[in-house]
Amino acid sequence: MYSEPVTQLIEAFAKLPGIGNKSAQRLAFHVIQLPKERAETLANAILQAVHTVQYCSICCNLADNDPCTICQNSKRDLHTIMVVEDPRDMAAYERTREYHGLYHVLHGVLSPMNSVGPNELKIAELLKRIQETSIEEVITATNPTVEGEATAMYISRLLKPLGVKVTRIAHGIPVGGDLEFVDEVTLTRALEGRVEL
Amino acid sequence: MYSEPVTQLIEAFAKLPGIGNKSAQRLAFHVIQLPKERAETLANAILQAVHTVQYCSICCNLADNDPCTICQNSKRDLHTIMVVEDPRDMAAYERTREYHGLYHVLHGVLSPMNSVGPNELKIAELLKRIQETSIEEVITATNPTVEGEATAMYISRLLKPLGVKVTRIAHGIPVGGDLEFVDEVTLTRALEGRVEL
Repeated sequence: MYSEPVTQLIEAFAKLPGIGNKSAQRLAFHVIQLPKERAETLANAILQAVHTVQYCSICCNLADNDPCTICQNSKRDLHTIMVVEDPRDMAAYERTREYHGLYHVLHGVLSPMNSVGPNELKIAELLKRIQETSIEEVITATNPTVEGEATAMYISRLLKPLGVKVTRIAHGIPVGGDLEFVDEVTLTRALEGRVEL
Repeated sequence: MYSEPVTQLIEAFAKLPGIGNKSAQRLAFHVIQLPKERAETLANAILQAVHTVQYCSICCNLADNDPCTICQNSKRDLHTIMVVEDPRDMAAYERTREYHGLYHVLHGVLSPMNSVGPNELKIAELLKRIQETSIEEVITATNPTVEGEATAMYISRLLKPLGVKVTRIAHGIPVGGDLEFVDEVTLTRALEGRVEL
């Protein structure tokens, strides 16, 4: 139907997550009709990112230098590690400017349904950090999903025998949220986690 | 927040139509974590398409050869042109295997709101084809939107004085559709366009 290079571009886009065949066609025709320089910018950004970005050997974040900027920064609190599922969650906490410790990126959560066990995650790397450096607290900041909770629990059981404090970020009503529209589990968690004023 | 190559890739994805900042982040991290060869396939597909695909000098379709395969095919009905908005509409009609004439791709529709006039579309090229070749019928197959209808009307007024028959694809109830859920305008069009059995 389409010429060969167009078909190949559509197929390449369609392989990306959340992009179906129709969206892939729309993207392909958009890119083809871009000025050549702008299309090349996209292609080069892909090549550049793929060739320079790697896992930080300490926290497993994706970065273009190793150790990454955060692990290299001696001004951060070197005794606290926040464990997150992926680099985007880490970026979300960095945007708060309220957390000054280190991170550890698991690159996923335990999910027996999808055959993701501890060996598929960066858990051995986390264990090594705890054993080799003076970490006092590990904050589990995986998402509040079934898998996220299970992963936090697994890490807690793994690390507590090593004498390290393991905490979990609080669950509760989101700021600006409306109680009426918050689900029962969150309401219960918010009640359980109440603090004295 | 992210390292420079990651930020650049996110920004390049976010410039694509229908891709917001969150989707761009998701795509960028997906691509970065792909095997290098697969990411290169995507980048190369973009470069390949941008460098080889061009407008067919006859029908203005996007193709990697000029004239395009359809315009080169002497077995097609050379006296009929179907005018479509973009290459995807052309591909949709090719999939029916029921149309054997030629095409003309406008690359848009008349839209004064978006400053798209006849000069922004491939209308001069259409006029030239009518004048230089023996076209008997022009089928306007623009979408049944306000702009699509206006564009079909404009082309009709432009070409009729040249003695060419100008037709419009039929509007009506989609096959498999349910009358109950079809809008009034379509129902009226279907009634007007009724054919004897």
